Amino acid sequence: MKNFILKNENAIYYETNFSCDNVIFLSLGSEKFFITDARYTLEAKECIKDCEVIESSDLVASAKEILNKNNIKELVFDPNDFSYATYSNLVKDIKTIFKEEPNFSKIKRLIKSDDEIKLLKKASVLGRLGFENFAKYIKKYGLKKSEEFLYFKAFENMSQSGKLNISFEPIVAINENAAKPHALPTLKKLRQGDLLLIDAGVKYQRYCSDRTCTSYVNFDNFNFEREQKFKNKKHQKIYDIVYKSQTTAIKKARSGMQAKEIDKIARDIITKAGYGNFFVHSTGHGVGLDIHEFPNINTKNDLIIEDNMVFTIEPGVYLPNEFGVRIEDTIVMKNGRAIIL
Amino acid sequence: MKNFILKNENAIYYETNFSCDNVIFLSLGSEKFFITDARYTLEAKECIKDCEVIESSDLVASAKEILNKNNIKELVFDPNDFSYATYSNLVKDIKTIFKEEPNFSKIKRLIKSDDEIKLLKKASVLGRLGFENFAKYIKKYGLKKSEEFLYFKAFENMSQSGKLNISFEPIVAINENAAKPHALPTLKKLRQGDLLLIDAGVKYQRYCSDRTCTSYVNFDNFNFEREQKFKNKKHQKIYDIVYKSQTTAIKKARSGMQAKEIDKIARDIITKAGYGNFFVHSTGHGVGLDIHEFPNINTKNDLIIEDNMVFTIEPGVYLPNEFGVRIEDTIVMKNGRAIIL
Repeated sequence: MKNFILKNENAIYYETNFSCDNVIFLSLGSEKFFITDARYTLEAKECIKDCEVIESSDLVASAKEILNKNNIKELVFDPNDFSYATYSNLVKDIKTIFKEEPNFSKIKRLIKSDDEIKLLKKASVLGRLGFENFAKYIKKYGLKKSEEFLYFKAFENMSQSGKLNISFEPIVAINENAAKPHALPTLKKLRQGDLLLIDAGVKYQRYCSDRTCTSYVNFDNFNFEREQKFKNKKHQKIYDIVYKSQTTAIKKARSGMQAKEIDKIARDIITKAGYGNFFVHSTGHGVGLDIHEFPNINTKNDLIIEDNMVFTIEPGVYLPNEFGVRIEDTIVMKNGRAIIL
Repeated sequence: MKNFILKNENAIYYETNFSCDNVIFLSLGSEKFFITDARYTLEAKECIKDCEVIESSDLVASAKEILNKNNIKELVFDPNDFSYATYSNLVKDIKTIFKEEPNFSKIKRLIKSDDEIKLLKKASVLGRLGFENFAKYIKKYGLKKSEEFLYFKAFENMSQSGKLNISFEPIVAINENAAKPHALPTLKKLRQGDLLLIDAGVKYQRYCSDRTCTSYVNFDNFNFEREQKFKNKKHQKIYDIVYKSQTTAIKKARSGMQAKEIDKIARDIITKAGYGNFFVHSTGHGVGLDIHEFPNINTKNDLIIEDNMVFTIEPGVYLPNEFGVRIEDTIVMKNGRAIIL
């Protein structure tokens, strides 16, 4: 096994089942080193097996000392994982050769273990529960509430009032604000007949969920179901196109396909309907410890999709100053097919 | 003026009064360039004056093109601001010499303008209002609520239910959990007679507030005032030491002192009381667009403190497995003295 160094919190968690916000991890042959400061050493020692925990007030200096002492000739690092400042400091006055290997941890994490899939499933179940509770809130109290306030209520419902971490800040966007793929909440208020887009997720044991619903706002029967009946005909037309794109991509995705083939299935339906220029992002992204992992499901990625990969399928159409629709599920590839988590 | 390049969102906001999460900024003599992707160009053009907004799907390539076209010989960059991957890509096949100047934006932002101080004052006022409302909540409903739930309620009260951004995730820690300077919320429940530490802040127009209160939990009269009467004598003893340390440092801080002299004022009081080994962090840090800016108020920094610098004074004593006390205010230096914002 190649020697490697890590600084990213989730990449290190994957190796050790523990992490913290100030750590350098070294894997040198059969020996592993978790270098952290006095705040975390106690807990690290309790949680980590088969790995030496080293307390240090200068992590880089300690890492270099270990590399020197063990006479390490070559070490793999991810150039995205280190600032230029830290990298310069690491390689200064040391014999070890640092070899760039971009995203090697994310590549390692591409195929999830069955245990990881259980955690991701649990995160998705909790995420859906958050959506359900949020729908009940909106139905009862949503009228005239601002995006800002609904953003707070999304956080409340998704996190179960602080019990769970969220996997990213929820997106809450009404009508024309939904035309921005990464809208920030405003003072705009929710009304009967509006279109509402919610993109949100939670974490379970550090593993993320990710889901987007676009709904017709009817306070008599508000819900985040996939079947939606809009009063506005253009809303319905675009919704139906995006829905068809998303469900078709899920239905036709196969292990053995290239990632870009799955993107093409989703994109072709939107393009043929005449809205290809308004589907301005990728069809999906991997989900795991990070909310954005591999595989990227985009127009260029020729990576072969395999069983136990977990990623989102989330086509969208964004009509500037009008409205936007996105429908997203996180899926796992099992027995050659995509199953919604 | 030296040519420079920036990637950090707050550093760029400081230059242009606008920012977004995908931008490279170039300042080349009298010309400025804000390079971003299609999601942000419209808003950028509306908000930014005296600066060319450039739409690009490859920010680094566009930056290099501009450097080449303008025949730029030398450019300052902050090695903390760029990943090694982005840096390598930037300097590849280009004549421009990249000169390291660590933290040059933070150094530039050390002394706040009067307008910035107004925003920081407003943030602090809103932060204190959040604390007051949170105190009312705790007094009425806090009994037997878990740290996790109180963390959510801190978020609710500080953010005014989503109206304001928070400047960092609130710290909510009861008794022995308060002995960890960066405690994460647990299921531990609040009881009469407990010690409760809250560290929280909000943003106003992107400028941060930061404050910590340690309180005696009495549901008849719960408050975040500085005068606290604990039933537990050791709680009271440590609280009085930290309070004396904090108020003395604020009273005696002067423009013209070195940062480490202010640290020494606070630290000496705790050390003389016999708890120096339990004051495990710096006395303070600068506050501005970033929650952690310059000046650092620690044992080593010989920077001269000047009027219009804004920083925290936050000594603490942490007794492992027992409890911790921290008292923090953000101050501005004015007419040679520290004024609480």
